[in-house]
Amino acid sequence: MALMYDGAIQDLIDAFAKLPGIGPKGAQRIAFYLLSADKHEVTHLAETITTVQEKVKFCEICGNVTESSPCAICLDPRRDASQICVVEEPKDVMAIERTREFRGKYHVLGGAINPMANVGPGDLRIKELLGRLGDESVKEVILALNPNIEGEATTTYLSRLLDPVGVRVTRLASGLPVGSDLEYADEITLGRAFSGRSEA
Amino acid sequence: MALMYDGAIQDLIDAFAKLPGIGPKGAQRIAFYLLSADKHEVTHLAETITTVQEKVKFCEICGNVTESSPCAICLDPRRDASQICVVEEPKDVMAIERTREFRGKYHVLGGAINPMANVGPGDLRIKELLGRLGDESVKEVILALNPNIEGEATTTYLSRLLDPVGVRVTRLASGLPVGSDLEYADEITLGRAFSGRSEA
Repeated sequence: MALMYDGAIQDLIDAFAKLPGIGPKGAQRIAFYLLSADKHEVTHLAETITTVQEKVKFCEICGNVTESSPCAICLDPRRDASQICVVEEPKDVMAIERTREFRGKYHVLGGAINPMANVGPGDLRIKELLGRLGDESVKEVILALNPNIEGEATTTYLSRLLDPVGVRVTRLASGLPVGSDLEYADEITLGRAFSGRSEA
Repeated sequence: MALMYDGAIQDLIDAFAKLPGIGPKGAQRIAFYLLSADKHEVTHLAETITTVQEKVKFCEICGNVTESSPCAICLDPRRDASQICVVEEPKDVMAIERTREFRGKYHVLGGAINPMANVGPGDLRIKELLGRLGDESVKEVILALNPNIEGEATTTYLSRLLDPVGVRVTRLASGLPVGSDLEYADEITLGRAFSGRSEA
Protein backbone atom coordinates (compact mmCIF):
# COMPACT_ATOMS: atom_id res chain seq x y z
CA MET A 1 0.00 0.00 0.00
CA ALA A 2 1.49 3.31 -1.09
CA LEU A 3 1.69 5.68 1.88
CA MET A 4 4.22 7.95 0.22
CA TYR A 5 4.18 9.65 -3.12
CA ASP A 6 6.29 8.34 -5.97
CA GLY A 7 9.96 9.44 -5.95
CA ALA A 8 10.30 13.01 -7.19
CA ILE A 9 7.22 14.52 -5.56
CA GLN A 10 8.06 12.93 -2.19
CA ASP A 11 11.68 14.13 -2.52
CA LEU A 12 10.37 17.66 -3.03
CA ILE A 13 7.99 17.40 -0.05
CA ASP A 14 10.83 16.08 2.13
CA ALA A 15 13.20 18.85 1.00
CA PHE A 16 10.66 21.59 1.81
CA ALA A 17 9.65 20.00 5.12
CA LYS A 18 13.28 20.47 6.29
CA LEU A 19 13.03 24.26 5.97
CA PRO A 20 12.18 26.27 9.10
CA GLY A 21 8.48 27.00 9.61
CA ILE A 22 7.26 24.49 7.01
CA GLY A 23 5.51 21.34 8.22
CA PRO A 24 4.61 18.22 6.22
CA LYS A 25 1.19 19.59 5.12
CA GLY A 26 2.66 22.92 4.06
CA ALA A 27 5.46 21.13 2.18
CA GLN A 28 2.88 18.98 0.36
CA ARG A 29 0.89 22.07 -0.60
CA ILE A 30 4.01 23.78 -1.98
CA ALA A 31 5.08 20.64 -3.87
CA PHE A 32 1.74 20.38 -5.70
CA TYR A 33 1.81 24.10 -6.36
CA LEU A 34 5.26 23.78 -7.97
CA LEU A 35 4.16 20.72 -9.92
CA SER A 36 1.62 22.79 -11.84
CA ALA A 37 3.35 26.18 -11.61
CA ASP A 38 4.68 28.15 -14.54
CA LYS A 39 7.98 26.61 -15.70
CA HIS A 40 9.68 30.01 -15.57
CA GLU A 41 8.71 30.55 -11.91
CA VAL A 42 10.02 27.10 -10.95
CA THR A 43 13.35 27.65 -12.72
CA HIS A 44 13.70 31.10 -11.14
CA LEU A 45 13.11 29.70 -7.65
CA ALA A 46 15.70 26.95 -8.16
CA GLU A 47 18.24 29.46 -9.50
CA THR A 48 17.84 31.92 -6.64
CA ILE A 49 18.35 29.04 -4.20
CA THR A 50 21.44 27.80 -6.04
CA THR A 51 23.12 31.19 -6.34
CA VAL A 52 22.36 32.80 -2.98
CA GLN A 53 25.38 31.34 -1.18
CA GLU A 54 27.72 32.40 -4.00
CA LYS A 55 26.33 35.90 -4.37
CA VAL A 56 25.68 36.94 -0.78
CA LYS A 57 28.68 37.92 1.32
CA PHE A 58 29.05 39.34 4.79
CA CYS A 59 30.29 42.91 5.18
CA GLU A 60 33.90 42.90 6.47
CA ILE A 61 33.10 45.86 8.74
CA CYS A 62 29.62 45.33 10.21
CA GLY A 63 28.93 41.66 9.38
CA ASN A 64 25.61 42.38 7.67
CA VAL A 65 24.65 40.49 4.49
CA THR A 66 25.65 42.28 1.30
CA GLU A 67 26.60 41.59 -2.30
CA SER A 68 29.72 43.70 -2.07
CA SER A 69 31.88 44.32 1.00
CA PRO A 70 31.94 46.82 2.71
CA CYS A 71 28.16 47.14 2.58
CA ALA A 72 26.17 50.17 1.43
CA ILE A 73 25.45 51.33 5.00
CA CYS A 74 29.11 51.16 6.09
CA LEU A 75 30.17 53.09 2.96
CA ASP A 76 27.41 55.73 3.22
CA PRO A 77 29.04 59.06 4.28
CA ARG A 78 25.63 60.48 5.29
CA ARG A 79 25.26 57.93 8.09
CA ASP A 80 26.44 59.00 11.53
CA ALA A 81 29.69 57.13 12.32
CA SER A 82 29.52 58.19 15.99
CA GLN A 83 26.75 55.65 16.76
CA ILE A 84 27.02 51.89 16.36
CA CYS A 85 23.90 49.81 16.88
CA VAL A 86 24.74 46.21 17.88
CA VAL A 87 22.23 43.55 16.75
CA GLU A 88 22.11 39.76 16.68
CA GLU A 89 21.17 39.05 13.06
CA PRO A 90 20.99 40.78 9.63
CA LYS A 91 17.17 40.71 9.81
CA ASP A 92 17.37 42.93 12.92
CA VAL A 93 19.18 45.57 10.83
CA MET A 94 16.26 45.50 8.41
CA ALA A 95 13.73 45.80 11.26
CA ILE A 96 15.52 48.87 12.66
CA GLU A 97 15.93 50.44 9.20
CA ARG A 98 12.16 50.21 8.75
CA THR A 99 11.63 52.40 11.82
CA ARG A 100 13.65 55.24 10.15
CA GLU A 101 14.66 56.24 13.71
CA PHE A 102 18.35 55.42 13.45
CA ARG A 103 20.88 57.10 11.15
CA GLY A 104 24.08 55.56 12.54
CA LYS A 105 25.99 52.40 11.63
CA TYR A 106 25.42 48.77 12.61
CA HIS A 107 27.34 45.82 13.97
CA VAL A 108 25.91 42.32 13.48
CA LEU A 109 27.09 39.85 16.12
CA GLY A 110 25.82 36.76 14.34
CA GLY A 111 23.78 35.55 17.33
CA ALA A 112 23.64 35.85 21.09
CA ILE A 113 25.39 34.12 23.99
CA ASN A 114 23.59 30.81 24.53
CA PRO A 115 25.32 28.19 26.71
CA MET A 116 22.58 25.62 25.91
CA ALA A 117 23.42 25.84 22.19
CA ASN A 118 27.17 26.08 22.90
CA VAL A 119 27.40 29.68 21.68
CA GLY A 120 29.90 31.64 23.75
CA PRO A 121 31.30 35.17 23.34
CA GLY A 122 34.09 33.76 21.14
CA ASP A 123 31.53 32.63 18.55
CA LEU A 124 30.18 36.16 18.09
CA ARG A 125 31.73 39.09 16.23
CA ILE A 126 32.76 40.82 19.48
CA LYS A 127 36.48 41.16 18.67
CA GLU A 128 35.48 42.96 15.44
CA LEU A 129 33.26 45.31 17.48
CA LEU A 130 36.12 46.18 19.84
CA GLY A 131 38.31 46.81 16.78
CA ARG A 132 35.81 49.38 15.49
CA LEU A 133 35.76 51.18 18.86
CA GLY A 134 39.50 51.88 18.56
CA ASP A 135 38.44 54.57 16.11
CA GLU A 136 37.94 57.81 18.09
CA SER A 137 34.82 58.77 16.13
CA VAL A 138 32.52 56.28 17.91
CA LYS A 139 30.70 58.00 20.81
CA GLU A 140 27.81 55.61 21.53
CA VAL A 141 27.15 51.87 21.29
CA ILE A 142 23.44 51.01 21.28
CA LEU A 143 22.81 47.41 22.35
CA ALA A 144 19.72 46.28 20.42
CA LEU A 145 19.60 42.58 21.25
CA ASN A 146 16.43 40.53 21.53
CA PRO A 147 14.55 40.98 24.84
CA ASN A 148 14.91 37.29 25.78
CA ILE A 149 17.30 35.35 28.05
CA GLU A 150 20.09 35.04 25.46
CA GLY A 151 19.78 38.67 24.39
CA GLU A 152 19.80 39.88 28.02
CA ALA A 153 22.88 37.78 28.81
CA THR A 154 24.68 39.20 25.79
CA THR A 155 23.65 42.76 26.67
CA THR A 156 25.01 42.31 30.21
CA TYR A 157 28.23 40.76 28.91
CA LEU A 158 28.81 43.53 26.36
CA SER A 159 27.97 46.40 28.71
CA ARG A 160 30.55 45.10 31.23
CA LEU A 161 33.10 44.52 28.47
CA LEU A 162 32.61 48.02 27.00
CA ASP A 163 32.58 49.83 30.36
CA PRO A 164 36.37 50.49 30.42
CA VAL A 165 36.43 51.56 26.74
CA GLY A 166 34.93 54.92 27.60
CA VAL A 167 32.11 55.14 25.05
CA ARG A 168 28.49 55.66 26.02
CA VAL A 169 26.70 52.27 26.10
CA THR A 170 22.90 52.31 25.87
CA ARG A 171 20.19 49.71 25.43
CA LEU A 172 16.72 49.78 23.87
CA ALA A 173 13.80 50.65 26.15
CA SER A 174 11.69 47.84 27.57
CA GLY A 175 7.99 48.54 28.09
CA LEU A 176 4.49 48.06 26.80
CA PRO A 177 4.28 47.43 23.05
CA VAL A 178 2.30 50.16 21.27
CA GLY A 179 -1.28 49.09 20.53
CA SER A 180 -1.28 46.45 23.27
CA ASP A 181 -3.50 46.08 26.32
CA LEU A 182 -2.09 46.72 29.81
CA GLU A 183 -4.25 43.87 31.08
CA TYR A 184 -2.49 41.33 28.86
CA ALA A 185 1.08 42.49 29.51
CA ASP A 186 3.24 39.98 31.39
CA GLU A 187 4.59 40.96 34.83
CA ILE A 188 8.17 41.50 33.66
CA THR A 189 7.16 43.78 30.77
CA LEU A 190 4.77 45.75 32.98
CA GLY A 191 7.43 45.98 35.71
CA ARG A 192 9.95 47.35 33.21
CA ALA A 193 7.38 49.84 31.91
CA PHE A 194 7.05 51.12 35.51
CA SER A 195 10.73 51.35 36.27
CA GLY A 196 11.40 53.00 32.91
CA ARG A 197 8.52 55.50 33.18
CA SER A 198 9.07 59.04 31.85
CA GLU A 199 7.48 62.47 32.44
CA ALA A 200 4.13 62.68 30.68
CA MET B 1 17.98 54.26 3.22
CA ALA B 2 18.03 50.55 2.44
CA LEU B 3 14.65 49.02 3.23
CA MET B 4 15.29 45.88 1.17
CA TYR B 5 18.15 43.45 1.27
CA ASP B 6 20.82 43.50 -1.40
CA GLY B 7 19.93 41.67 -4.65
CA ALA B 8 20.29 37.90 -4.21
CA ILE B 9 18.90 37.56 -0.70
CA GLN B 10 15.88 39.74 -1.54
CA ASP B 11 15.34 37.72 -4.75
CA LEU B 12 15.27 34.56 -2.66
CA ILE B 13 12.86 36.08 -0.12
CA ASP B 14 10.56 37.25 -2.95
CA ALA B 15 10.64 33.84 -4.65
CA PHE B 16 9.70 32.03 -1.43
CA ALA B 17 7.03 34.59 -0.52
CA LYS B 18 5.20 33.65 -3.75
CA LEU B 19 4.72 30.06 -2.59
CA PRO B 20 1.41 29.15 -0.94
CA GLY B 21 1.35 29.39 2.86
CA ILE B 22 4.61 31.38 3.13
CA GLY B 23 4.43 35.05 4.13
CA PRO B 24 7.20 37.67 4.00
CA LYS B 25 8.52 36.84 7.50
CA GLY B 26 8.55 33.11 6.82
CA ALA B 27 10.30 33.70 3.48
CA GLN B 28 12.95 35.84 5.23
CA ARG B 29 13.52 33.12 7.83
CA ILE B 30 13.95 30.46 5.12
CA ALA B 31 16.27 32.70 3.07
CA PHE B 32 18.64 33.22 6.03
CA TYR B 33 18.44 29.53 6.84
CA LEU B 34 19.50 28.65 3.28
CA LEU B 35 22.24 31.29 3.34
CA SER B 36 24.04 29.42 6.10
CA ALA B 37 22.78 25.90 5.35
CA ASP B 38 24.94 23.00 4.25
CA LYS B 39 25.84 23.43 0.54
CA HIS B 40 24.67 19.88 -0.19
CA GLU B 41 21.20 20.50 1.27
CA VAL B 42 20.82 23.71 -0.76
CA THR B 43 21.86 22.01 -4.01
CA HIS B 44 19.52 19.09 -3.28
CA LEU B 45 16.57 21.43 -2.72
CA ALA B 46 17.24 23.32 -5.97
CA GLU B 47 17.56 20.04 -7.90
CA THR B 48 14.33 18.54 -6.59
CA ILE B 49 12.54 21.78 -7.56
CA THR B 50 14.07 21.77 -11.05
CA THR B 51 13.33 18.14 -11.82
CA VAL B 52 9.87 17.66 -10.32
CA GLN B 53 7.96 18.81 -13.41
CA GLU B 54 10.05 16.58 -15.69
CA LYS B 55 9.87 13.51 -13.49
CA VAL B 56 6.31 13.56 -12.22
CA LYS B 57 3.58 12.46 -14.61
CA PHE B 58 -0.13 11.93 -14.22
CA CYS B 59 -1.49 8.38 -14.45
CA GLU B 60 -3.35 7.93 -17.77
CA ILE B 61 -6.03 5.89 -15.97
CA CYS B 62 -6.74 7.53 -12.61
CA GLY B 63 -5.02 10.93 -13.00
CA ASN B 64 -2.97 10.56 -9.81
CA VAL B 65 0.65 11.76 -9.73
CA THR B 66 3.15 9.03 -10.57
CA GLU B 67 6.61 8.57 -12.05
CA SER B 68 5.39 5.91 -14.49
CA SER B 69 1.95 5.66 -16.06
CA PRO B 70 -0.25 3.71 -15.30
CA CYS B 71 0.44 4.23 -11.60
CA ALA B 72 1.22 1.54 -9.03
CA ILE B 73 -2.34 1.50 -7.63
CA CYS B 74 -3.96 1.13 -11.07
CA LEU B 75 -1.57 -1.72 -11.93
CA ASP B 76 -1.91 -3.51 -8.56
CA PRO B 77 -3.91 -6.73 -9.17
CA ARG B 78 -4.63 -7.06 -5.42
CA ARG B 79 -6.71 -3.86 -5.44
CA ASP B 80 -10.47 -4.25 -5.90
CA ALA B 81 -11.36 -3.03 -9.41
CA SER B 82 -15.09 -3.06 -8.57
CA GLN B 83 -14.80 0.13 -6.46
CA ILE B 84 -13.62 3.52 -7.74
CA CYS B 85 -13.13 6.30 -5.21
CA VAL B 86 -13.45 9.75 -6.84
CA VAL B 87 -11.37 12.52 -5.26
CA GLU B 88 -10.46 16.10 -6.12
CA GLU B 89 -6.66 16.05 -5.81
CA PRO B 90 -3.72 13.62 -5.56
CA LYS B 91 -3.24 14.58 -1.91
CA ASP B 92 -6.74 13.22 -1.18
CA VAL B 93 -5.61 9.80 -2.48
CA MET B 94 -2.79 9.93 0.04
CA ALA B 95 -5.15 10.94 2.87
CA ILE B 96 -7.46 7.99 2.12
CA GLU B 97 -4.54 5.56 1.74
CA ARG B 98 -3.41 6.48 5.23
CA THR B 99 -6.75 5.30 6.67
CA ARG B 100 -6.11 1.78 5.28
CA GLU B 101 -9.91 1.51 4.95
CA PHE B 102 -10.12 1.38 1.17
CA ARG B 103 -8.71 -1.35 -1.10
CA GLY B 104 -10.25 -0.27 -4.41
CA LYS B 105 -9.02 2.06 -7.15
CA TYR B 106 -9.08 5.86 -7.43
CA HIS B 107 -10.06 8.54 -9.88
CA VAL B 108 -8.58 12.02 -9.46
CA LEU B 109 -10.79 14.77 -10.95
CA GLY B 110 -8.17 17.51 -10.72
CA GLY B 111 -10.44 19.86 -8.76
CA ALA B 112 -14.12 20.55 -8.12
CA ILE B 113 -16.80 22.53 -9.92
CA ASN B 114 -16.30 26.20 -8.97
CA PRO B 115 -18.11 28.84 -11.06
CA MET B 116 -16.32 31.65 -9.17
CA ALA B 117 -12.95 30.33 -10.35
CA ASN B 118 -14.31 29.45 -13.80
CA VAL B 119 -13.95 25.69 -13.24
CA GLY B 120 -16.79 23.79 -14.92
CA PRO B 121 -17.41 20.05 -15.39
CA GLY B 122 -15.49 20.20 -18.67
CA ASP B 123 -12.30 21.18 -16.80
CA LEU B 124 -12.40 18.05 -14.62
CA ARG B 125 -11.51 14.47 -15.58
CA ILE B 126 -15.20 13.44 -15.75
CA LYS B 127 -15.13 12.08 -19.32
CA GLU B 128 -12.26 9.81 -18.27
CA LEU B 129 -14.34 8.61 -15.29
CA LEU B 130 -17.29 7.74 -17.55
CA GLY B 131 -14.87 5.88 -19.83
CA ARG B 132 -13.75 3.70 -16.92
CA LEU B 133 -17.36 2.88 -16.01
CA GLY B 134 -17.86 1.31 -19.45
CA ASP B 135 -15.89 -1.60 -17.98
CA GLU B 136 -18.43 -4.04 -16.47
CA SER B 137 -16.23 -4.76 -13.44
CA VAL B 138 -17.01 -1.44 -11.70
CA LYS B 139 -19.86 -1.92 -9.18
CA GLU B 140 -19.54 1.16 -6.96
CA VAL B 141 -18.37 4.75 -7.32
CA ILE B 142 -17.54 6.38 -3.98
CA LEU B 143 -17.67 10.18 -4.18
CA ALA B 144 -15.04 11.45 -1.73
CA LEU B 145 -15.01 15.18 -2.46
CA ASN B 146 -14.32 17.88 0.07
CA PRO B 147 -17.27 18.73 2.36
CA ASN B 148 -17.43 22.35 1.15
CA ILE B 149 -19.60 24.22 -1.38
CA GLU B 150 -17.53 23.24 -4.43
CA GLY B 151 -17.24 19.61 -3.31
CA GLU B 152 -20.97 19.38 -2.60
CA ALA B 153 -21.82 20.88 -6.00
CA THR B 154 -19.51 18.38 -7.71
CA THR B 155 -20.97 15.49 -5.69
CA THR B 156 -24.51 16.49 -6.72
CA TYR B 157 -23.46 16.91 -10.35
CA LEU B 158 -21.73 13.53 -10.49
CA SER B 159 -24.45 11.61 -8.66
CA ARG B 160 -27.03 12.89 -11.20
CA LEU B 161 -24.69 12.18 -14.10
CA LEU B 162 -23.95 8.64 -12.90
CA ASP B 163 -27.55 7.79 -11.99
CA PRO B 164 -28.42 6.35 -15.45
CA VAL B 165 -25.12 4.40 -15.66
CA GLY B 166 -26.45 1.75 -13.30
CA VAL B 167 -23.55 1.53 -10.81
CA ARG B 168 -24.00 2.09 -7.08
CA VAL B 169 -23.02 5.70 -6.24
CA THR B 170 -22.14 6.44 -2.61
CA ARG B 171 -20.67 9.40 -0.74
CA LEU B 172 -18.61 9.69 2.44
CA ALA B 173 -20.50 10.11 5.74
CA SER B 174 -20.88 13.57 7.21
CA GLY B 175 -20.91 13.88 10.99
CA LEU B 176 -18.93 14.76 14.08
CA PRO B 177 -15.17 14.46 13.68
CA VAL B 178 -13.70 11.88 16.09
CA GLY B 179 -12.12 13.51 19.15
CA SER B 180 -14.16 16.69 18.79
CA ASP B 181 -16.63 18.31 21.18
CA LEU B 182 -20.38 18.27 20.42
CA GLU B 183 -20.60 21.76 21.89
CA TYR B 184 -18.24 23.18 19.27
CA ALA B 185 -19.74 21.46 16.20
CA ASP B 186 -21.39 23.83 13.72
CA GLU B 187 -25.15 23.46 13.08
CA ILE B 188 -24.77 21.86 9.66
CA THR B 189 -22.31 19.22 10.87
CA LEU B 190 -24.43 18.45 13.95
CA GLY B 191 -27.58 18.32 11.80
CA ARG B 192 -25.91 15.84 9.44
CA ALA B 193 -24.73 13.77 12.39
CA PHE B 194 -28.39 13.53 13.47
CA SER B 195 -29.83 12.67 10.08
CA GLY B 196 -27.07 10.13 9.47
CA ARG B 197 -27.32 8.48 12.93
CA SER B 198 -26.89 4.71 13.17
CA GLU B 199 -27.92 1.98 15.66
CA ALA B 200 -25.69 2.09 18.74
